[in-house]
Amino acid sequence: MHPRTDTLIDLALEEDAGLGDITSQAIFSSDHVSTAQILAREDLVVFGLEVARRVFLRVDPSVTVCLLADDGENVNKGNAVLRAEGSTVSLLTAERTALNFLQRLSGIASLSRRFAEAARQSGHGVRVVDTRKTTPGWRALEKAAVRSGGCFNHRSSLGEHVLIKENHIAAAGSLSEAVKRARAFAPHCAKIEVEVESLQEVRQAVESGAEIIMLDNMSPAQIHQAVALIDQAAIVEISGGVRLETFADYALPGVDVISVGALTHSAPAVDLSMTLATELEN
Amino acid sequence: MHPRTDTLIDLALEEDAGLGDITSQAIFSSDHVSTAQILAREDLVVFGLEVARRVFLRVDPSVTVCLLADDGENVNKGNAVLRAEGSTVSLLTAERTALNFLQRLSGIASLSRRFAEAARQSGHGVRVVDTRKTTPGWRALEKAAVRSGGCFNHRSSLGEHVLIKENHIAAAGSLSEAVKRARAFAPHCAKIEVEVESLQEVRQAVESGAEIIMLDNMSPAQIHQAVALIDQAAIVEISGGVRLETFADYALPGVDVISVGALTHSAPAVDLSMTLATELEN
Amino acid sequence: MHPRTDTLIDLALEEDAGLGDITSQAIFSSDHVSTAQILAREDLVVFGLEVARRVFLRVDPSVTVCLLADDGENVNKGNAVLRAEGSTVSLLTAERTALNFLQRLSGIASLSRRFAEAARQSGHGVRVVDTRKTTPGWRALEKAAVRSGGCFNHRSSLGEHVLIKENHIAAAGSLSEAVKRARAFAPHCAKIEVEVESLQEVRQAVESGAEIIMLDNMSPAQIHQAVALIDQAAIVEISGGVRLETFADYALPGVDVISVGALTHSAPAVDLSMTLATELEN
Amino acid sequence: MHPRTDTLIDLALEEDAGLGDITSQAIFSSDHVSTAQILAREDLVVFGLEVARRVFLRVDPSVTVCLLADDGENVNKGNAVLRAEGSTVSLLTAERTALNFLQRLSGIASLSRRFAEAARQSGHGVRVVDTRKTTPGWRALEKAAVRSGGCFNHRSSLGEHVLIKENHIAAAGSLSEAVKRARAFAPHCAKIEVEVESLQEVRQAVESGAEIIMLDNMSPAQIHQAVALIDQAAIVEISGGVRLETFADYALPGVDVISVGALTHSAPAVDLSMTLATELEN
Amino acid sequence: MHPRTDTLIDLALEEDAGLGDITSQAIFSSDHVSTAQILAREDLVVFGLEVARRVFLRVDPSVTVCLLADDGENVNKGNAVLRAEGSTVSLLTAERTALNFLQRLSGIASLSRRFAEAARQSGHGVRVVDTRKTTPGWRALEKAAVRSGGCFNHRSSLGEHVLIKENHIAAAGSLSEAVKRARAFAPHCAKIEVEVESLQEVRQAVESGAEIIMLDNMSPAQIHQAVALIDQAAIVEISGGVRLETFADYALPGVDVISVGALTHSAPAVDLSMTLATELEN
Amino acid sequence: MHPRTDTLIDLALEEDAGLGDITSQAIFSSDHVSTAQILAREDLVVFGLEVARRVFLRVDPSVTVCLLADDGENVNKGNAVLRAEGSTVSLLTAERTALNFLQRLSGIASLSRRFAEAARQSGHGVRVVDTRKTTPGWRALEKAAVRSGGCFNHRSSLGEHVLIKENHIAAAGSLSEAVKRARAFAPHCAKIEVEVESLQEVRQAVESGAEIIMLDNMSPAQIHQAVALIDQAAIVEISGGVRLETFADYALPGVDVISVGALTHSAPAVDLSMTLATELEN
Repeated sequence: MHPRTDTLIDLALEEDAGLGDITSQAIFSSDHVSTAQILAREDLVVFGLEVARRVFLRVDPSVTVCLLADDGENVNKGNAVLRAEGSTVSLLTAERTALNFLQRLSGIASLSRRFAEAARQSGHGVRVVDTRKTTPGWRALEKAAVRSGGCFNHRSSLGEHVLIKENHIAAAGSLSEAVKRARAFAPHCAKIEVEVESLQEVRQAVESGAEIIMLDNMSPAQIHQAVALIDQAAIVEISGGVRLETFADYALPGVDVISVGALTHSAPAVDLSMTLATELEN
Repeated sequence: MHPRTDTLIDLALEEDAGLGDITSQAIFSSDHVSTAQILAREDLVVFGLEVARRVFLRVDPSVTVCLLADDGENVNKGNAVLRAEGSTVSLLTAERTALNFLQRLSGIASLSRRFAEAARQSGHGVRVVDTRKTTPGWRALEKAAVRSGGCFNHRSSLGEHVLIKENHIAAAGSLSEAVKRARAFAPHCAKIEVEVESLQEVRQAVESGAEIIMLDNMSPAQIHQAVALIDQAAIVEISGGVRLETFADYALPGVDVISVGALTHSAPAVDLSMTLATELEN
Repeated sequence: MHPRTDTLIDLALEEDAGLGDITSQAIFSSDHVSTAQILAREDLVVFGLEVARRVFLRVDPSVTVCLLADDGENVNKGNAVLRAEGSTVSLLTAERTALNFLQRLSGIASLSRRFAEAARQSGHGVRVVDTRKTTPGWRALEKAAVRSGGCFNHRSSLGEHVLIKENHIAAAGSLSEAVKRARAFAPHCAKIEVEVESLQEVRQAVESGAEIIMLDNMSPAQIHQAVALIDQAAIVEISGGVRLETFADYALPGVDVISVGALTHSAPAVDLSMTLATELEN
Repeated sequence: MHPRTDTLIDLALEEDAGLGDITSQAIFSSDHVSTAQILAREDLVVFGLEVARRVFLRVDPSVTVCLLADDGENVNKGNAVLRAEGSTVSLLTAERTALNFLQRLSGIASLSRRFAEAARQSGHGVRVVDTRKTTPGWRALEKAAVRSGGCFNHRSSLGEHVLIKENHIAAAGSLSEAVKRARAFAPHCAKIEVEVESLQEVRQAVESGAEIIMLDNMSPAQIHQAVALIDQAAIVEISGGVRLETFADYALPGVDVISVGALTHSAPAVDLSMTLATELEN
Repeated sequence: MHPRTDTLIDLALEEDAGLGDITSQAIFSSDHVSTAQILAREDLVVFGLEVARRVFLRVDPSVTVCLLADDGENVNKGNAVLRAEGSTVSLLTAERTALNFLQRLSGIASLSRRFAEAARQSGHGVRVVDTRKTTPGWRALEKAAVRSGGCFNHRSSLGEHVLIKENHIAAAGSLSEAVKRARAFAPHCAKIEVEVESLQEVRQAVESGAEIIMLDNMSPAQIHQAVALIDQAAIVEISGGVRLETFADYALPGVDVISVGALTHSAPAVDLSMTLATELEN
Repeated sequence: MHPRTDTLIDLALEEDAGLGDITSQAIFSSDHVSTAQILAREDLVVFGLEVARRVFLRVDPSVTVCLLADDGENVNKGNAVLRAEGSTVSLLTAERTALNFLQRLSGIASLSRRFAEAARQSGHGVRVVDTRKTTPGWRALEKAAVRSGGCFNHRSSLGEHVLIKENHIAAAGSLSEAVKRARAFAPHCAKIEVEVESLQEVRQAVESGAEIIMLDNMSPAQIHQAVALIDQAAIVEISGGVRLETFADYALPGVDVISVGALTHSAPAVDLSMTLATELEN
């Protein structure tokens, strides 16, 4: 799990602090030490604390980092999530990079928690899942943030799961032919999912033996009919523009999974800041 | 500009398509060709087209890519921004990665355009600038997206510009001492900026000869007073929670710069999709 | 698909030719040109030609490379699979690296072809699949070589498919509890596979609803019984020491998949060499 | 020695465990700990233990690793070579990558030991050496494995030793001219080796002052004659298809070195596995 | 600061010691330990000790490194600057790479100290600054070495400071138009510097409001006139072929900054060597 | 040869132009084109033209680059060595990085040419060779620059050639024992070199059969005696502080090789600059 994360940390430190922090170097002596705390400035679900710890240690292995919360934990405004002690220049050099990881990942976790709560309230055991609409380079981190918020992951790449869409169906000549070709080619451990846009395609998908049927941009009424047609012969997945406000309309009985791209592509950053308790130099 | 971008493209392709696209490989023959178009599904300012082009070419150098818009251009819903022709499997393999770059960068450009428009309407020549609250690894790309939307950049790293904050002042003993140390240490080409939180500090900053004074989280009334105190002796920068809705309250006469972290950390992704015109195989 | 392969090519060229080819540089002038051919020195299934092409072009973009066979094609001893024209020093600098890729990948493809043929002869539609016992850094390439030989892939990583083994069962307390936990955690698109070692476990796996049951190191007689118990309620996978010589004993009716680690970890290299048609210098 | 190895480890972990181990994460709590042992499942010469240790530590620096054998040591079937204690999820995440390094490198060491033993039995002090037919990216590791098995290394790259082959001779006009050019160009610390295919060339090589003469694909009878011609004026190296079964035929008096490509390109993996002693969770 | 430095260390170790140190491995057993000292063989200002420490630890984390001087300190011939204890093979493997960093960086620091001393003696408070004429890949390290010697840094990249040259002026049509365009485009935190070649351009630069005026290749007499014209309206920078011998001629009253490319591009390496106190093996 | 060079180019462009060239972007429109020429501003031997070409193409593949000289060629002051046509912003973005490579590498080539000339004038056929005192990351490039100037390379790494020094002799107990151990361990293609400091050691080195004897820091008189003792039984190498001014004193009859660290570690940069012929914008 670390190699990709370490690459991102190095890219981030290089772009922010490759030349050092000239303000802090001008003002603090190199042996001046402080204690920093990262605080939530709004209620949030925190995620990325282990990454933040690595940021501080990458800048300066002699910094001591103590995590004050667990990834995935609800944190109230004003509470601290991380404490770091060591060279003041090192702490200030790491500050923005650590916060930039935390604010994005905690933003995803916090939004995921709200969707997970909505799913819980729907009472039908529906799962909210993410999509592949992630920040390039960040997929594993963002998918972990989604899980920490209580949602689930969809497939992680084009390489281990089959998802047949309109173009594939057209090229194969029919939905059933597309499923047949996929089953003949794909690993036996890959499930076959088909994206459908009409009730007729729902029927064909059931007949083809697809393990998952994705109802793309259907209205609640259409979903109701599709669920009846599928009748538990496949996992039912809803996709397309479901928002928190409209969630209850889509989380109908018989719907197993609702995918929400916004979990990763449009979660607003949450507000965290770092405070420094520093001694005056004599 | 390219080395860092190429690293991100490679990270993204590796995580999404490192094992290929098993669905498309199952269904399309390797010599099946198509024409893909990337369309705006809402009104937006597009940015990232050159990056998207590199994504397609990295997947398959034999794909032909034609950009149908310029980075920074307003694009209406339904219009195409990029056309790519070549192997169908290659086009589908590149699709999500290209879109993931475009949706984030165009989201930033689109939000920046709205702030730039608000600045224009304020009539005072104020600049809206970004911050260092960028996605780790993406700073140069995101700052370019901000510019393409009509806003401006603040400093890009801790290494070439001085920004003195509360902790630096406390450690130096006084604001003027902090400025003095910074000027003695920093390159002569670096401007000295001081973040202030009270009118008393504004006065000290002016006296210290700071070239930029950042009014942190001040109310419009306080800003009004600060501007008067500074009286054009320094560039006046406003920072802290300025939103589109409240923008006019802060874009007061005498304010030169307003920094908005949300430009990069919370711009929602815009909606783009790829369509494929593909021939049926015989 | 390219980023990882390009990394391997660069590592290989760096270790073999980072300092150039001092023998060839001593003897050939830099504008001396030749035509090289890569020949099969035994009957083989070739794989890696696109990689070999990239090796030549990475050493010298002005070399012209023409592939004389398709990846996955049977090639008889003595036949050429690639022709390259250009600077003699460039061709000789690339030679060993290109051959090192081809001999390993074609070795895997050739062994896979023999297993695929054995599967075909068994008459039961059984699939031979690879494992995760691949060369570190080479997984995608080796899995593609397996497919090109006519076998199939098993899961590619620990991250997108569930495989429950003895330790997981022990930790969960029971096989059915392990399956239950996995289904509750894993993406809905992941199949659940269970590795079993006794007929009792086979029964439990069927009852748990596992989609794939792996019979680990069972004798043909045990397999026969297990197949009957499973009765098409799950995909039946055989694992453990199946060799070409004993293949027919295991490819019993009702067996869907046989996994063979040797496809990737012990395929002997095939013999290929490069010849050079070079003009005498005047 | 570490930078290249660390690159391979990161590539391997990324491809196997970039997304984590979803099975183990589903079933084990994150604070569940175990003790893992890596066992030889056949008699073998172990190599790669230091690499395996780095794999575990890269996954999780808090794992404790204890090596139970030395690289290059003979290990009997059933004996443990490495013990690791720590988070169960971490141990299972590292398992396959660690084994994939060990099985290949120990396979090379084990085959090298058999050739070294054959050389010892020949009684003539002949060395068995490897070639540049190594796995791209793995050269330093594979050459170390060869040494650990008791064989020796040939040149490691095209850049520090001269090896004149048929094409070079043809281009230079004569063997002696080729040697002359090489000596004029190459570092004074590089030995000049010539590959010869006939007794006439052997004579020319001796006259040219070549320090090493490689007899390419000669029969034992030809080798006998060549050795007499050379008469200790150069190191005598035999190359071309020498196998363990035919080794004694080639290890004739006067032969100094026999190169065997199969040491690195076709050594079958040896069988190692990891067992886990894990406590039941309460 | 570390990621880029670590990349250089890895490149260096790979090229020098990727295959190990065959001489030391031949002669020392792997558990033979020694104490190494790095000594100044001439009077010098040392810089790079932290880098050297990382080199030893990268080769072998079990080596103990003790720094005997601070970066930037004057060290007399014969004095030790670093002591390392541990495996003899590790110490000898790291030796040349550690020295190669130290000799270059200390060379830069030593030359910078001489220029800083010359500046001090001029009595006018002039700063000597570096340029962007640095070794590709080494900019941050070389700029830190310059500072450690007592000189200052000029801008670090093309991206955060404006420097208008002849071509820009020609393209814009006039100096004032070039300044105007730059001010409209560049971040508000960037100073505007203009390179001028005549007194007429000096006047234009002052009128344009440039914050820094670089007098390019002017004679002391011209500089004298330019200083008078500028009259403290801008920072005065001298550029072009100033050497230690001619320094006093240029460090005239009113000159604020003198830039010297030779600080980084032509500082001769200083002489350091490593000695080893090693026990005889029994 | 390219992978390592490309890494350096990317590091250099990232540090100089990762954020673009804000001055040129402010002033030139993106479609403004120019013709750039790189000129020698002193007499020099040029080296690095192929690298410079890659720099321009890496910044912008649409730039056309024409080399006007060959690497290794003498170029008179005022002559152009490279012409590039394309986007003005691209040319200016690449300028400093291209020059930074050329000025260092041509500096090495130019100094090497002077030593090569001194060697030629000595009339004894002595070779001047480099050392491993190279810039970390740059070894292959710097060694190529040395060759282009007419000097030769010594060993390139610790891994393919044996060089026995004082510590090795002490550890082995005697010089002959050290040679014996090295010969038993090292590849048969590695020559054995011994560094000696006295005539007694010279005698021992000859007796041990060392192929190269390095006379370390000996006076011309001692060298004269050593040459007589060695009497062509080994290659004679002189090392230690030989400068151009004292070269003739050391290039005595019987001396084969003189190694000069300054070739790579202290060659001053030569002076090159880029001029731009650019059209005025309308």
